[in-house]
Amino acid sequence: MKEIDLNFAVSRVGECRITSPISGVRFVKDEEHVLYHSDIETIKSYLETGREPPYLEKAGPREKIYFDPVNLRCGIITCGGLCPGLNDVIRAIVLTLFQQYGVKQVLGFRYGYEGLSSKYSHEPLELTPESVGSINEMGGTILGSSRGNQDIGDMVDTLNRLHIGILFAIGGDGTLQGAQAIASEATRRGLKISVIGIPKTIDNDISFIQQSFGFDTAGSEARRAIYAAYSEARGARNGIGLVKLMGRDSGFIAVYAALANSQVNFCLVPEVPFKLEGLLKALEKRLARQGYAVIVAAEGAGQDLLAATAERDASGNIRYGDIGIFLRGRIKEHFSQIGRQVEMKYIDPSYIIRSLPANARDSAFCLLLGQNAVHAGLAGKTDMVVGNWNHQGTHVPISMAVSQRKKLDPEGWLWNSVLAITGQPRNLF
Amino acid sequence: MKEIDLNFAVSRVGECRITSPISGVRFVKDEEHVLYHSDIETIKSYLETGREPPYLEKAGPREKIYFDPVNLRCGIITCGGLCPGLNDVIRAIVLTLFQQYGVKQVLGFRYGYEGLSSKYSHEPLELTPESVGSINEMGGTILGSSRGNQDIGDMVDTLNRLHIGILFAIGGDGTLQGAQAIASEATRRGLKISVIGIPKTIDNDISFIQQSFGFDTAGSEARRAIYAAYSEARGARNGIGLVKLMGRDSGFIAVYAALANSQVNFCLVPEVPFKLEGLLKALEKRLARQGYAVIVAAEGAGQDLLAATAERDASGNIRYGDIGIFLRGRIKEHFSQIGRQVEMKYIDPSYIIRSLPANARDSAFCLLLGQNAVHAGLAGKTDMVVGNWNHQGTHVPISMAVSQRKKLDPEGWLWNSVLAITGQPRNLF
Amino acid sequence: MKEIDLNFAVSRVGECRITSPISGVRFVKDEEHVLYHSDIETIKSYLETGREPPYLEKAGPREKIYFDPVNLRCGIITCGGLCPGLNDVIRAIVLTLFQQYGVKQVLGFRYGYEGLSSKYSHEPLELTPESVGSINEMGGTILGSSRGNQDIGDMVDTLNRLHIGILFAIGGDGTLQGAQAIASEATRRGLKISVIGIPKTIDNDISFIQQSFGFDTAGSEARRAIYAAYSEARGARNGIGLVKLMGRDSGFIAVYAALANSQVNFCLVPEVPFKLEGLLKALEKRLARQGYAVIVAAEGAGQDLLAATAERDASGNIRYGDIGIFLRGRIKEHFSQIGRQVEMKYIDPSYIIRSLPANARDSAFCLLLGQNAVHAGLAGKTDMVVGNWNHQGTHVPISMAVSQRKKLDPEGWLWNSVLAITGQPRNLF
Amino acid sequence: MKEIDLNFAVSRVGECRITSPISGVRFVKDEEHVLYHSDIETIKSYLETGREPPYLEKAGPREKIYFDPVNLRCGIITCGGLCPGLNDVIRAIVLTLFQQYGVKQVLGFRYGYEGLSSKYSHEPLELTPESVGSINEMGGTILGSSRGNQDIGDMVDTLNRLHIGILFAIGGDGTLQGAQAIASEATRRGLKISVIGIPKTIDNDISFIQQSFGFDTAGSEARRAIYAAYSEARGARNGIGLVKLMGRDSGFIAVYAALANSQVNFCLVPEVPFKLEGLLKALEKRLARQGYAVIVAAEGAGQDLLAATAERDASGNIRYGDIGIFLRGRIKEHFSQIGRQVEMKYIDPSYIIRSLPANARDSAFCLLLGQNAVHAGLAGKTDMVVGNWNHQGTHVPISMAVSQRKKLDPEGWLWNSVLAITGQPRNLF
Repeated sequence: MKEIDLNFAVSRVGECRITSPISGVRFVKDEEHVLYHSDIETIKSYLETGREPPYLEKAGPREKIYFDPVNLRCGIITCGGLCPGLNDVIRAIVLTLFQQYGVKQVLGFRYGYEGLSSKYSHEPLELTPESVGSINEMGGTILGSSRGNQDIGDMVDTLNRLHIGILFAIGGDGTLQGAQAIASEATRRGLKISVIGIPKTIDNDISFIQQSFGFDTAGSEARRAIYAAYSEARGARNGIGLVKLMGRDSGFIAVYAALANSQVNFCLVPEVPFKLEGLLKALEKRLARQGYAVIVAAEGAGQDLLAATAERDASGNIRYGDIGIFLRGRIKEHFSQIGRQVEMKYIDPSYIIRSLPANARDSAFCLLLGQNAVHAGLAGKTDMVVGNWNHQGTHVPISMAVSQRKKLDPEGWLWNSVLAITGQPRNLF
Repeated sequence: MKEIDLNFAVSRVGECRITSPISGVRFVKDEEHVLYHSDIETIKSYLETGREPPYLEKAGPREKIYFDPVNLRCGIITCGGLCPGLNDVIRAIVLTLFQQYGVKQVLGFRYGYEGLSSKYSHEPLELTPESVGSINEMGGTILGSSRGNQDIGDMVDTLNRLHIGILFAIGGDGTLQGAQAIASEATRRGLKISVIGIPKTIDNDISFIQQSFGFDTAGSEARRAIYAAYSEARGARNGIGLVKLMGRDSGFIAVYAALANSQVNFCLVPEVPFKLEGLLKALEKRLARQGYAVIVAAEGAGQDLLAATAERDASGNIRYGDIGIFLRGRIKEHFSQIGRQVEMKYIDPSYIIRSLPANARDSAFCLLLGQNAVHAGLAGKTDMVVGNWNHQGTHVPISMAVSQRKKLDPEGWLWNSVLAITGQPRNLF
Repeated sequence: MKEIDLNFAVSRVGECRITSPISGVRFVKDEEHVLYHSDIETIKSYLETGREPPYLEKAGPREKIYFDPVNLRCGIITCGGLCPGLNDVIRAIVLTLFQQYGVKQVLGFRYGYEGLSSKYSHEPLELTPESVGSINEMGGTILGSSRGNQDIGDMVDTLNRLHIGILFAIGGDGTLQGAQAIASEATRRGLKISVIGIPKTIDNDISFIQQSFGFDTAGSEARRAIYAAYSEARGARNGIGLVKLMGRDSGFIAVYAALANSQVNFCLVPEVPFKLEGLLKALEKRLARQGYAVIVAAEGAGQDLLAATAERDASGNIRYGDIGIFLRGRIKEHFSQIGRQVEMKYIDPSYIIRSLPANARDSAFCLLLGQNAVHAGLAGKTDMVVGNWNHQGTHVPISMAVSQRKKLDPEGWLWNSVLAITGQPRNLF
Repeated sequence: MKEIDLNFAVSRVGECRITSPISGVRFVKDEEHVLYHSDIETIKSYLETGREPPYLEKAGPREKIYFDPVNLRCGIITCGGLCPGLNDVIRAIVLTLFQQYGVKQVLGFRYGYEGLSSKYSHEPLELTPESVGSINEMGGTILGSSRGNQDIGDMVDTLNRLHIGILFAIGGDGTLQGAQAIASEATRRGLKISVIGIPKTIDNDISFIQQSFGFDTAGSEARRAIYAAYSEARGARNGIGLVKLMGRDSGFIAVYAALANSQVNFCLVPEVPFKLEGLLKALEKRLARQGYAVIVAAEGAGQDLLAATAERDASGNIRYGDIGIFLRGRIKEHFSQIGRQVEMKYIDPSYIIRSLPANARDSAFCLLLGQNAVHAGLAGKTDMVVGNWNHQGTHVPISMAVSQRKKLDPEGWLWNSVLAITGQPRNLF
């Protein structure tokens, strides 16, 4: 691991002067940290040059808190595309606010940032332990969602008008940048509004966070789709099963699914470039040897091969060319040209995956995230997200979380394992 | 039920002179039948005019059989698209041949009718109870499949050369017509080859057969896809979830899935025509009232609305225009024109459904079909399929089975139940 | 099929004078029937002796109804043990009452018949389309349940005091007998209260009803338990996997699960007696040949082998001796005596099965039952249950439904299929 | 974290002089390590006192290996109770040996250590990529298993006679101690036999290993069982759902399942003692407030409350008294004594859980473990297990792995989260 200069200091809206109503737990101190690196050489090199090795603040209940639960009103929003576990996080936040802190008022804003905008007249939902009791059994989000940001000043006006003390924002990069802007504007106006993000990315590509919620459920369901492609491919002479999976910038879902369903012969990810000719040649060989082949492509793979469309969606993300449709066409074309008949089956399970309820692991994980988000909010932390690192809950400043995408290391053990099990050549050129 | 003139007489390759090796079972006689009609008025009207009411021959083990199991060699082929349960049927046939009759040689021909053609050199698989022992846990077909027929004379040559006594053909309409042609040609040549079809149609549209294998599994998985569409739709402002399901000529899967997942607001099937304007108007109302809507369309629905493409696939089926893509486009266009922003999510779960392993019901059903196919084959029946009617296994001549598609009755209780639960208008004009 | 003298006439509380608010459907007439028998010989023999062959009244919407929906108040109760689909039936009744007939008041009585008794002060729930909208995704019953009947007069007092027009009672034999008593007492008092039963028996043992709701889900989950037993058995030297399944008087679940998971070697059901010695001898042989064995026992199997306990549960059912525990003990004992070490794994999945949400088939079926129950109730039918026969919804008088248990025919095709696939001897003596 | 004196040095059978046949991967060096601690204070205190902080050797492919793959013969055994993922590990080892290293001979010994004993005449299976290709879809172990050790000298004789270079032993504590003894005896005799353990404990209680395979699948399925208990409890007046889960010494499964299914009201684990009176009192309160209650008990919880039976099973583990049966009896008794009627439903899903196929996460994890086990074995490592620590594959000497059970920290964040979501009192006294 290389040394990097990182600043993991977390902001807060004010001093913690109130005694937590929670009793009987081991409180976590702001001075407790989790080391970012886990190899002794790197750590020694920091220490020998008189620098502190980077570490992340530990999440958990604080003995002194900032907000008085009795008068506190909180808000929750969910933004962007669906992701398994959204309802679990909402539920965990509401239950923890009510049952551990005695908070009595929680508003669920509708349809993402639209719910904070005066342009729309979405009435917020009153959330209670009863109303959220079994929402975790349903996919989607009971609050609704939308893409894109709204006017920051307008949203802060709404928060102020409704006396919101803590805003919990569940969403991806764009959402977190919005949350950061809201936190800044609130600070600028001298408002004591804490903004806590719960990072949502089914692609698992948020930096400084080991795993994001929904990722495990996505990988499990992706395995089902791959199994379908494999069955179709194996059932036909020269059958080719092609599955497009989520993963705009990072191939973690494709990799996870390939490891979990070891019938995959080619795994294409954004981090590892390939040439069409290389893929086609290797595919020919595989078909000749095995009679069928299974290909998994992350949506961001091979983007250089497509004429990049300059479009952006409502959240400002570049709309990617569709690698699945592209490969389907080119592969069929190629084999038709060389006079070999293939049977191509193409599967794009994206929406089915996104709208699933969370599996057991993600459910448990969402609960921990929601609990930690509440502890952080009550302690007056702001402009941060809750995360996890080396099996510890952590606090990460939004600026760090959105600073770069987490990516697969093409030299690392994970990608090596994929190459080993798929048997695909390291270089598809 | 209306009176119809039906001829359910089943052919056989010769006299049954051999005593069945099975003991201790109640044998079924050729004279046992299942009534086709189940209302007394129709039956009386047949009897009063001196005609026999139509009935189907009952399936089951016969006391006297035609083929001597000791010297019998059988073949199995699977044709056309994947369908849950193919491996279950193969397994049931092999186990029943070996364990109940003591047959010792079963060949699994590869890739559908290609496996019987001399043009391809696909080596058949030797099938044994050990080799098929747990294939039912896997989706697809271990034999592979292909679409389309091969030269009939060539295929009969192969069967003759390999001394096949009974050919079990698992497939849809095209396959069964091929099976019929093989049976005729064999008869013409004086060959004692029994051809038994096991009708495969995930759409459940084979006549005189109450339910076809794989249909139940398909409906169950379709429910998952609809649930995804529903979650997506509900999670967005003016969200529209659109699911395309199998069903070229008959809407049974769409109907079953709509009844099983009662979040569907519009169910579109081939049997019930609609106009685009009618659908759009009703959809507007539904969005206004409910905030989101879920649409399920069988692939054969609204084909008159599309410019029919004259293409046919390798099996000779007309390639349908894609109603899902069509509706997705037109609905978006319409709401864009009237200035209302909608969020459209389109799901086409077809391949995932087709490649699933059979669920419990289909597994049990495939076992019964396979057992009955073997009993029929050993008894020298030919040119027929095994089916089921009013909870009895039956024999149906191929000519009857392929005479017409089974279709949903737009006046019947089933469609009424769909209208009641979806709340969609009876006429979308 | 043998001739039987059956009286399927359904009672009603009064004349139907009100025009149904439903439009655009094909109404069903009281004169429409489904034949009970489906073989021509039996039907002819009835006709030749001048008798009508027995038939069941068809279910469905009537053109004229008895109750005025505007003023109608309905009640629902769920009684006895859990069964997959209870919430689906509740939901279907509520949605159909509100959406098809415009009924506005539906009470959900709590904890079975306790909810109608003045001894308990259970407040009924107000049920609306909103409150039942997604209860079908949860197992159990939102109303709660209890076993046993309460004082009939007291319960009729409650119904009268609350102005209940139709009582929908979902439950088994005991519940239906209670429903019958309530209907009689109401008639005696001249009260116009319709009592409609929806028969609940996970064992599928109600007469004149082809399949009961929850049975399919139960069979599917039972397959999982058997698979576990099979894995355990196969994984050990002389491994024996023993699964006890539901089925007090009828072995349908055990049979269904054995057909769906064809790894079962012995299937023991109440309808087919066996001796312990016979089973042990056959088991020895099986172990010697196969190295492991899987046994499935319905809870009512081999009851003569146990010292019958005379206990009865709160519903008045005889408490059966536990065949699973009995067999586990005796088998271990036996092999220990003959000096052969076996590994016995015993699985009793009962509660997990009973509390599942309904699978797709059961969900769709519960919807149809609920719709038909409402149509029957509105038409003033009473003292009856909704059922199904030869793919048609039917009305069956409670007296017929509870007259005897439906049982497996040890000579029939279903049991033959089980013997064929398990390979167990026909006689275990 | 407290300082501990740990010795993580891994043994090897000899010098690595052969160049690995693998190319194009980043090889791992023996000098690469993962820090055991992750807080800076502990690490500094080690460094300041001149000691190295403890770390674990990193797993992965080595550039130089010890065994020549061409002549290498390997063996695999699976021991002890079933655990999801056994077949995945077998498959991963076989595929990696053949496909990455070109090893050609792999024997699968039958029924655990029995397969190495001359007392039994179990013929080993020849394992090939074809024969293990889809075994991961099945639960259990294709090799069979048994409990307990066999004579060490005898087993080493067998390994020697069959020219086994690497023995892969998949099993729990007892198995690993056996593996250690085999390794020692081989060393004593100067035999170059590498023994690599893959630690199997569904309880996740092996030290220095963050998670063991099968644990995730177990937690997921346990959630289903708890859901059943919850449905039963909620469906009855004063319903109590009691679920016994695996966890002899450590409550990780119970904790995981409680977090994943947040309907649990009491979670009882071995690490946190309780008194029966405390539990009963809290249960009374919960029933009064909520009307029902759900209790989850790890099998090792409250063992002090039971009269400890001194029995040991064949593996030498103490047979625990059954806390589930005990609690069921005492709770019923108590409420009967205080005259309150409760409905108790008791679920013990153990065997169903143990025999499941691995879920996606466990499948992927088993693949990584199997790959790392092969890399370690080829490099001549011995007397060690493969593990994982802070998202890195690791090598752990068997002596460390079996030195103590990993246990839940009653003061840690995990148990705090459980207390928060269940709402159970910290002290049940």
